[in-house]
Amino acid sequence: MRQEAIRQVAAGADILDVNVGAAGVDEVALLPEAIKIVMEAVDVPLCIDSANPDALQAALEVYQGKPIVNSVNGKESSLERILPLVKQYNAVVIGLCMDDEGIPENDPDRRLAIAKKIVSRAEALGIPREDVLIDCLALTLGANTKAGLVTLEAMRKVKAELGVNLTLGASNISFGLPDRELLTSAFLAICIAAGLTCPIVDAAKVRPAILAADLALGKDDYGRRYIRAYRARLKAQAG
Amino acid sequence: MRQEAIRQVAAGADILDVNVGAAGVDEVALLPEAIKIVMEAVDVPLCIDSANPDALQAALEVYQGKPIVNSVNGKESSLERILPLVKQYNAVVIGLCMDDEGIPENDPDRRLAIAKKIVSRAEALGIPREDVLIDCLALTLGANTKAGLVTLEAMRKVKAELGVNLTLGASNISFGLPDRELLTSAFLAICIAAGLTCPIVDAAKVRPAILAADLALGKDDYGRRYIRAYRARLKAQAG
Repeated sequence: MRQEAIRQVAAGADILDVNVGAAGVDEVALLPEAIKIVMEAVDVPLCIDSANPDALQAALEVYQGKPIVNSVNGKESSLERILPLVKQYNAVVIGLCMDDEGIPENDPDRRLAIAKKIVSRAEALGIPREDVLIDCLALTLGANTKAGLVTLEAMRKVKAELGVNLTLGASNISFGLPDRELLTSAFLAICIAAGLTCPIVDAAKVRPAILAADLALGKDDYGRRYIRAYRARLKAQAG
Repeated sequence: MRQEAIRQVAAGADILDVNVGAAGVDEVALLPEAIKIVMEAVDVPLCIDSANPDALQAALEVYQGKPIVNSVNGKESSLERILPLVKQYNAVVIGLCMDDEGIPENDPDRRLAIAKKIVSRAEALGIPREDVLIDCLALTLGANTKAGLVTLEAMRKVKAELGVNLTLGASNISFGLPDRELLTSAFLAICIAAGLTCPIVDAAKVRPAILAADLALGKDDYGRRYIRAYRARLKAQAG
């Protein structure tokens, strides 16, 4: 049943993020086991998601293919511990725009500076820039009306200055607000127009909006993916 | 019952577009009558929508307040006939980016050139620039995958070079495609980020997505309008 659930999610996703973090969990033991189970269940690439470097290493050890590591950030301790793993396992890494001082709340330039630091430290170790995905970080609009603008501005700057691919845990934007899917979908469309390439989302809920944004932005010739997904939804509703 | 229908629509709209165009209709007689009925029913400003200049004039004659005329375009015949009416009745006018050669399909610069022509001809008659709303025109993605990009690029150029407010009949983008509301909503969010200020939409369907885009873009302090509209929807569903 667990495998069936994974299959259903992965059917709508291009990459699956695997995270086993919870209070009392031994991530170093559990994360590699979870990675093995998911690898057997689906054919999509996996993103190995943990704040624990030892758990990341244990999971990287069992992963087959080119993994994505979620994540490194601008803290010295993180750069020093995570980037060598990324190099060793020839992984892609997600770089979060935060550092020892936390997330620069209303300062897109500081987020850009952290992204630059991560890319430059990765390149110094021989990790190519195309293997770094920058996450400019979304915070909830419920606490700060300018949160979306700050993220957008940071993404535009990072795209323009570093030319890297961008990822984002976009649904943070709607935390604590009603009708989250509606708000996250609108924000995602705007982010994709600003250069977001790899959003991290609840695919079952938000994928239709992402396909709509792709089509609106000329990234889906003849709307083939959009129409195929629409038909699949109709079929799923009927079945 | 007609008035009740109008009231329901207007409850979600900031401006109501009134159009009586249909085969066999005498617009010159009917449009002013429709304007009078709608004025009595609702308190929102009206947009007088006709391709017939005589019908526009008849409606402008009965309208109370500052009307919006929909529309003038870059054709010489349109500029000569419509702009003097706009001046005479102190109206706002929607300027469509098309001319005697039709809509420039894949050419944002030609759409910008038409917008410039409309604004300059309006200003020559003493119509201030802030009374011109430019519509860069949306065509369906079903016929041309680049249609959305062309409209977006035209809007960015018009905003940057002319500084005018932008309107758009946004739902054209999804004509002939499935799940139109989803696609139109994604396109609208991207357009609003690009500077669209006055979308023309089926408010009952697309207003939630517009409020979500406004909030995502920092235009709705503390999400007050977004949350109020959410509560109103809940109430309407319950009632």
